[in-house]
Amino acid sequence: MTALDYLECSRCSRRYERGKLHGLCECGGPLLVRYDLERLRREWQRDSISQGPSSMWRYCRALPVTQESSIVSLGEGLTPLIRVKRLSQRFGSSDLWVKDDGINPTGTFKARGMSCAISMCRELGVNKVAVPSAGNAAGAAAAYAAAAGIEAHIFMPRDVPRANYVECVMAGAKVTLVDGLISDCARIVSQRKEAEGWFDLSTLKEPYRIEGKKTMGYEIAEQFDWRLPDAILYPCGGGVGIIGMWKAFEEMEALGWISSQRPKMVAVQAAGCPPIVRAFEQGAPASEFYENAQTLASGLRVPKALGDFLALEAVRKSGGTAIAVSDDEIMEGVGDPASSEGIFAAPEGGACVAACKKLLANGFFRPSERVVIYNTGSGLKYIETYDR
Amino acid sequence: MTALDYLECSRCSRRYERGKLHGLCECGGPLLVRYDLERLRREWQRDSISQGPSSMWRYCRALPVTQESSIVSLGEGLTPLIRVKRLSQRFGSSDLWVKDDGINPTGTFKARGMSCAISMCRELGVNKVAVPSAGNAAGAAAAYAAAAGIEAHIFMPRDVPRANYVECVMAGAKVTLVDGLISDCARIVSQRKEAEGWFDLSTLKEPYRIEGKKTMGYEIAEQFDWRLPDAILYPCGGGVGIIGMWKAFEEMEALGWISSQRPKMVAVQAAGCPPIVRAFEQGAPASEFYENAQTLASGLRVPKALGDFLALEAVRKSGGTAIAVSDDEIMEGVGDPASSEGIFAAPEGGACVAACKKLLANGFFRPSERVVIYNTGSGLKYIETYDR
Repeated sequence: MTALDYLECSRCSRRYERGKLHGLCECGGPLLVRYDLERLRREWQRDSISQGPSSMWRYCRALPVTQESSIVSLGEGLTPLIRVKRLSQRFGSSDLWVKDDGINPTGTFKARGMSCAISMCRELGVNKVAVPSAGNAAGAAAAYAAAAGIEAHIFMPRDVPRANYVECVMAGAKVTLVDGLISDCARIVSQRKEAEGWFDLSTLKEPYRIEGKKTMGYEIAEQFDWRLPDAILYPCGGGVGIIGMWKAFEEMEALGWISSQRPKMVAVQAAGCPPIVRAFEQGAPASEFYENAQTLASGLRVPKALGDFLALEAVRKSGGTAIAVSDDEIMEGVGDPASSEGIFAAPEGGACVAACKKLLANGFFRPSERVVIYNTGSGLKYIETYDR
Repeated sequence: MTALDYLECSRCSRRYERGKLHGLCECGGPLLVRYDLERLRREWQRDSISQGPSSMWRYCRALPVTQESSIVSLGEGLTPLIRVKRLSQRFGSSDLWVKDDGINPTGTFKARGMSCAISMCRELGVNKVAVPSAGNAAGAAAAYAAAAGIEAHIFMPRDVPRANYVECVMAGAKVTLVDGLISDCARIVSQRKEAEGWFDLSTLKEPYRIEGKKTMGYEIAEQFDWRLPDAILYPCGGGVGIIGMWKAFEEMEALGWISSQRPKMVAVQAAGCPPIVRAFEQGAPASEFYENAQTLASGLRVPKALGDFLALEAVRKSGGTAIAVSDDEIMEGVGDPASSEGIFAAPEGGACVAACKKLLANGFFRPSERVVIYNTGSGLKYIETYDR
């Protein structure tokens, strides 16, 4: 199983012991999980991976769960990576791919993070969790909590897609619809969690959701036979997908599985809520709270992300960029892969399609570069958004 | 690639040549694909399967496509098979599993059949297809046709879940909503197809959708390490899932991959549309058209299935049964795995959960038997059905 070693603060590098429940560091920084990669380098060969389970748990040695019986899995991960030739032609590229995380339990990439975090809750004896969500993390938290027999308290904006509400209720979660954004939901959880005995599953306020999400990076490497692409476009709400993939790349290099080459990481946001794009353009190390966030891509309505500094660092180190697209561009970005490839993406994925088109048109991407568009969710979760 | 040999009528055994476009046999019987299984038995070892792609195309040697370049794949198949311990306890069983085909492109098992059929359309030069559907086949046909650049004409009942309509429109299909059932849609396609130059993708009116669907049988065998379970509950609309799995079992036995042991095949229908259950109870070889079909499980609103006689034969030979459940039982059957396992099933899957509960309660299943509940689709496609 795992080569879990200790936890480390991403801000002040203070270390924390494994096997105990942790939230943020005393300094307020998010904790990251560290593994004994030297030992793993000797014991774990990349060629053995394909014999593992057909889920993200094939990478379990670099995941934090110590007992196999703790794992709460619904078959998350190992999602399709599809060469999109017809879309490439439309956009003037020759090597375009879509990584389709809509093909996941609960229909989004959030299943990865929650499978890992809820497994750790089971391992560490947590029996009540709370999660503030822009929508899709709620559905995943509700499902994995149900599977583990853990009580889930969900807080999300009242105007999330109806699918997010219904999936949580069906899974038996206690759902509160909030007149506000994810930031308002997070405040409620913060205020109530101590009295209620809830473990706070807010992304990066606990160290394990990111570990599940990092498997996106492992999979892209494996599916391209351990040669990373030239660029990855990723929709940036909380930014943890980018941080997680970046962490995976570092781990895999330490394992001797990949070279030091890195994809340009492109953070894609909505024009109605672009705090990371603003910070990137201003050369700032972190973002500022974005007032009056509004976009049909509900997963991108995150006015201020806890891990913004880590996402910005990854984007900059990679030679990538941050780019915002309008809601009209997002809708076109959903329509293009649906009609030319049969891939029915979430608006967040559509944002990446739209950004890719722009970056090919303005020369940021050369036509011959291998570019991966990350679709984080299924269009099936946004029927009323598209039904117009 | 394939060991495709010829096509054979399931009624009169007349043979048809491979490499040509075929519909039904002259006698009106559905054609089935036959492979050179003796050659395959020598050349194809079950232990090599896990090295293939992470999709149903890992079984490509027993699929009809001759050129790899013909394959139209969105990553369908290789769906999770989940041991459901908490549900088992609730139902008084010790070895219950859910095969979750909701984790598929387009959110249902229909992706399997359409990936195969549209691949064959590409291989054989078809450029316009038409499909009558109860809903989910439509979404899959639209997506795979889009991926192949084939024009899709879709006919489905006006009152299908909205997701079915929206996914088809997004994929660029020409959609006609019909005031009636799938049988009325089928009539329209039959009447217009010649003049319009459409290839009729109605299930079993062409020989390849069933080939995609049979991979459900291959996967269950592989995932249980080549030992079939004691029983499989499957929702029976057109019945092709059952026919396909049964065909897969016969092929795998000929390949030397499994023994002659077979699961009891249980056909599950809705009380509001139980033609196969009636035929089973009456000992009839085929079903009669069921008038005024009505159920919230839209995929089970099939008043008369072309392959009814084949499904009935498989159920009888296997020592299985056919059982109908009410809409209230279906809703409970959706709620149970959602709240105890985090598995958000389609109503058709919920029907199988409800049937399983009944068959454990009445002793048809012993508690120690290994039983697989097949969930054919994601609950995300039925949000308005559940939102009440």
